[in-house]
Amino acid sequence: MEIGIVGLGLIGGSLGIDLRSLGHRVLGVSRRAETGDRAVERGAVDVASPDLALLRSVDVAFVCTPLGVMEATVRELVPHLPPDAALTDVGSVKGWVVEAIAPLWHNFVGGHPMAGTADSGIEAAQPNLFTGAAYVLTPTDTTPIEAVERVEAVVKPLQVRLYRCHPEAHDRAVSWISHLPVLVSASLIAACTTEVDPEVAILAKALASSGFRDTSRVGGGNPELGVMMARYNTPALRQSLLVYRDQINHLLNLLEQQDWQALQAMLEQTHRDRPPFLR
Amino acid sequence: MEIGIVGLGLIGGSLGIDLRSLGHRVLGVSRRAETGDRAVERGAVDVASPDLALLRSVDVAFVCTPLGVMEATVRELVPHLPPDAALTDVGSVKGWVVEAIAPLWHNFVGGHPMAGTADSGIEAAQPNLFTGAAYVLTPTDTTPIEAVERVEAVVKPLQVRLYRCHPEAHDRAVSWISHLPVLVSASLIAACTTEVDPEVAILAKALASSGFRDTSRVGGGNPELGVMMARYNTPALRQSLLVYRDQINHLLNLLEQQDWQALQAMLEQTHRDRPPFLR
Repeated sequence: MEIGIVGLGLIGGSLGIDLRSLGHRVLGVSRRAETGDRAVERGAVDVASPDLALLRSVDVAFVCTPLGVMEATVRELVPHLPPDAALTDVGSVKGWVVEAIAPLWHNFVGGHPMAGTADSGIEAAQPNLFTGAAYVLTPTDTTPIEAVERVEAVVKPLQVRLYRCHPEAHDRAVSWISHLPVLVSASLIAACTTEVDPEVAILAKALASSGFRDTSRVGGGNPELGVMMARYNTPALRQSLLVYRDQINHLLNLLEQQDWQALQAMLEQTHRDRPPFLR
Repeated sequence: MEIGIVGLGLIGGSLGIDLRSLGHRVLGVSRRAETGDRAVERGAVDVASPDLALLRSVDVAFVCTPLGVMEATVRELVPHLPPDAALTDVGSVKGWVVEAIAPLWHNFVGGHPMAGTADSGIEAAQPNLFTGAAYVLTPTDTTPIEAVERVEAVVKPLQVRLYRCHPEAHDRAVSWISHLPVLVSASLIAACTTEVDPEVAILAKALASSGFRDTSRVGGGNPELGVMMARYNTPALRQSLLVYRDQINHLLNLLEQQDWQALQAMLEQTHRDRPPFLR
């Protein structure tokens, strides 16, 4: 097939590398010509251009720009697309994206490949980034089934675990397991840095080890990503955070009542409940 | 030197292996004779016995039993110790331990080697468990300096990072970076399992990846360890948890006010503040 990719960063570039390996012809658009040149050099696209008209004959187009510019990008893109092209995106929030973009293109299917690295940009693009990762598609009741099937036909050979669900179900699921952990983890770092006794503050830094490192990792990550997820998934994330605060309040009560039996029961439950979230 | 170790589990056994390699004669006491036999077979002690009288001529004794039986163990042990023996422990909380044990033995120095694995027991004992780890000693104003120096002389060759501080400073520091993360992390698991929509609950498990895995790790760990730390470090942990809840409330306010600029500033701060806690 002929595949268009708009936005040649980590995700767009990695998609291009794999789709070319699978025999597709990949056309890439980046606002900056030098990014397109690097994408060609790195084997991520066959041809690159800053001009969206490059995608005039594609079968499927992937929008891989940040959430903040996605709607504007699609508005510029759609006049150039052939009428039956399927359009999809790779944004980490789906309700808002589908609401904004579905009215702009009848063959739009929201998508979210759940892969990434700590790096970004075309230089971070790599083969097999998506192997074994979840890839969620979020068709609605009005999405043409042909568009869903065409996007699935393109991404399934990447050896992803493919899921279909409503945009709202996706957003609630990721608010629990992806967005809430960022706020939980950032709050840990913020709390630890409130210590005013200099001896304790220095000691805390010296004694921190793997427990602190793991629990604080996503809260010390890319600030822009954290803001994006909060901004575009606000209601679901707020609801998750309210439930989380209830759990913290519950623990405070157990400490105040010195109810070690109930604490033991809770920690046995979390010990049992974690493995189903891991693969 | 002649070294006594009471309690031949992961920590006691690993200490024995290293101290024997360094040329010390190591005498081990375990209530169960078969644990002592295994400690001899594994090279963790030169001689083992269920009888505390084995330690009648040691220079330094390490109490490596769980916190819950430490005071009772020391009460049984002290009639057998030579008068100038230094006594230390390896408990993960120090205020409570020092308060309970210092009155029982004048040459007592609280200690906390901050190393471990997910496993426990003599079979989990291993060489070099403490290499590069922090090892905190918590003398008080009345601890004889000779006792502190003798314990330091024994543990320093394990290539630990040695710290001295007051028991209370230790307990506040570990409440931030070791005990609070357990409650933060357990609350995340507990919150995620409240989801009542079966589609979302299944999807959350399917989509969870490294962010959830890392943030939930210590909250899904050994329930007994979590209860011990809460039970023996209650006031410091409660204080840390109250500060943590303030941070969660602050984030809820930012979400409600959609104050993305303040959220960006907070996440930039946590991004900067994390590295000093890592080595």
